[in-house]
Amino acid sequence: MTKIKAAIVGYGNIGRFVLEALLEAPDFEVVGVVRRNADNVPAELRDFQVVTSIDALAVKPDVAILCTPTREVERQAAPILAAGINTVDSYDIHTSIADLRKHLNEVAKEHGSVAIISAGWDPGSDSIVRTLMQAAAPKGITYTNFGPGMSMGHTVCVKSKPGVKNALSMTIPLGTGIHRRMVYVELEPGASLEEVTKAVKTDPYFASDETHVMQVASVDDVKDMGHGVNMVRKGVSGRTQNQRFEFNMSINNPALTAQILVGVARASMLQKPGAYTMIEIPVIDLLPGDREELIRHLV
Amino acid sequence: MTKIKAAIVGYGNIGRFVLEALLEAPDFEVVGVVRRNADNVPAELRDFQVVTSIDALAVKPDVAILCTPTREVERQAAPILAAGINTVDSYDIHTSIADLRKHLNEVAKEHGSVAIISAGWDPGSDSIVRTLMQAAAPKGITYTNFGPGMSMGHTVCVKSKPGVKNALSMTIPLGTGIHRRMVYVELEPGASLEEVTKAVKTDPYFASDETHVMQVASVDDVKDMGHGVNMVRKGVSGRTQNQRFEFNMSINNPALTAQILVGVARASMLQKPGAYTMIEIPVIDLLPGDREELIRHLV
Repeated sequence: MTKIKAAIVGYGNIGRFVLEALLEAPDFEVVGVVRRNADNVPAELRDFQVVTSIDALAVKPDVAILCTPTREVERQAAPILAAGINTVDSYDIHTSIADLRKHLNEVAKEHGSVAIISAGWDPGSDSIVRTLMQAAAPKGITYTNFGPGMSMGHTVCVKSKPGVKNALSMTIPLGTGIHRRMVYVELEPGASLEEVTKAVKTDPYFASDETHVMQVASVDDVKDMGHGVNMVRKGVSGRTQNQRFEFNMSINNPALTAQILVGVARASMLQKPGAYTMIEIPVIDLLPGDREELIRHLV
Repeated sequence: MTKIKAAIVGYGNIGRFVLEALLEAPDFEVVGVVRRNADNVPAELRDFQVVTSIDALAVKPDVAILCTPTREVERQAAPILAAGINTVDSYDIHTSIADLRKHLNEVAKEHGSVAIISAGWDPGSDSIVRTLMQAAAPKGITYTNFGPGMSMGHTVCVKSKPGVKNALSMTIPLGTGIHRRMVYVELEPGASLEEVTKAVKTDPYFASDETHVMQVASVDDVKDMGHGVNMVRKGVSGRTQNQRFEFNMSINNPALTAQILVGVARASMLQKPGAYTMIEIPVIDLLPGDREELIRHLV
């Protein structure tokens, strides 16, 4: 079997878990890692080529798995797609997903490559479940309840406040899509908890949610990468009311994101040129192995 | 907007709910109902053509929604596909789904039509969730727990036993894919509960499950069409253990089956000729409306 040649672009938290998922996958080979500082080679990367530009890889990848920050995705993906290499990413700014898809769709179609975007767990696998729930009961409301787990965006926001040395913003689900923010801060010497609390609570990120700010001696001591989701829909199938659906997860956040990225990297090999979100690709394409066997076991 | 022309083939329990789902859908028109006895026209069908053969419909449908018993699906679908009309069905004999797909795939490809098979909730929407869970944590076990709800196959089996006038076999989930069978029987005068119980418990349908047979005065009085499922997976994403996923439903069984059938009828218009199971089609294709809007709301 010819293996799919994958490059990891960006080697932070997600990149490390993507490497593990690729090494566990039966149908992938890792052709290298692209990172800003190619001299920084941790032990687990010693067997792989580490470069600062994807063009420098000795073997051209079939697909680049983008593990860079969300705001860099568009800038990173476009030239890679233009080089005829597929890209996958976990771009997570919900309001701009459609625009990213539109732009990358043009580039990918022009160069015969495939982009699968916003492929983590939300957006990503949750999006598939949300779509399926809506198909099962077209009238009704789906609530997506996140957590308990760390919110990256909210944490970065708190860290930016004067007097904050380190921070952690936890998302606590209260049901019906309403969330409490539990914010843990390590303060600079002399900083006032009262002032930091005020700055956090008035920030647009927090202003509409119940928010509690607590001081801790060490943020690292209270941080874990577990996360969860609870999605519920009560709706109408045809004219029949009270159809109920629920999806729950309790997961290591970067490990799941990485596994989904590897699944869509595989799926990218089966799509026509263009850009796709996960709800636009068949779920069977995420899996390795003989399709008829998969159908026998999973349908 | 040109509406999708749908015919309902078979007008039993599922057929009635399919009519309701079609009438609620913004993008369908019903071109008629095909049933064995076309003189049997209940009030809700008075505005529609009711015929004994799909060829007799005044307007040729784009898609035929098969609501006939599972064992008739193959025989019904093949000639309809050969006439260039798409078919969808909720064929539910798990062990022969791959073979049905193979046969209908040949017919559909030859005649430029599309079949979407085994499209109810299990097989069907559950299959998509099972596939997604396996993609999210490739190593691990998924347990599908059914019920509490009526099992059609087990009920038919009990009804076939001598001395049984009417029956209901309820599936009770005990976890890890193990089920209890609660069997309610209305007996013929003079029949022995002991003998019926023995016949039921030794039947291959029941032999490996914990089974209880109880006599009731009226099976109709204890029958309802609610059903449910609980699917759980604990597995490994990459090298990270203990990733947990759960999907629950509590639903009216024929209403959900009918809604899914209408969704795949819509999706059939977007696939290339051939036969598909639900895990082979993008979930977005199940929904009506502008795709970019759907992506903005659901991803």
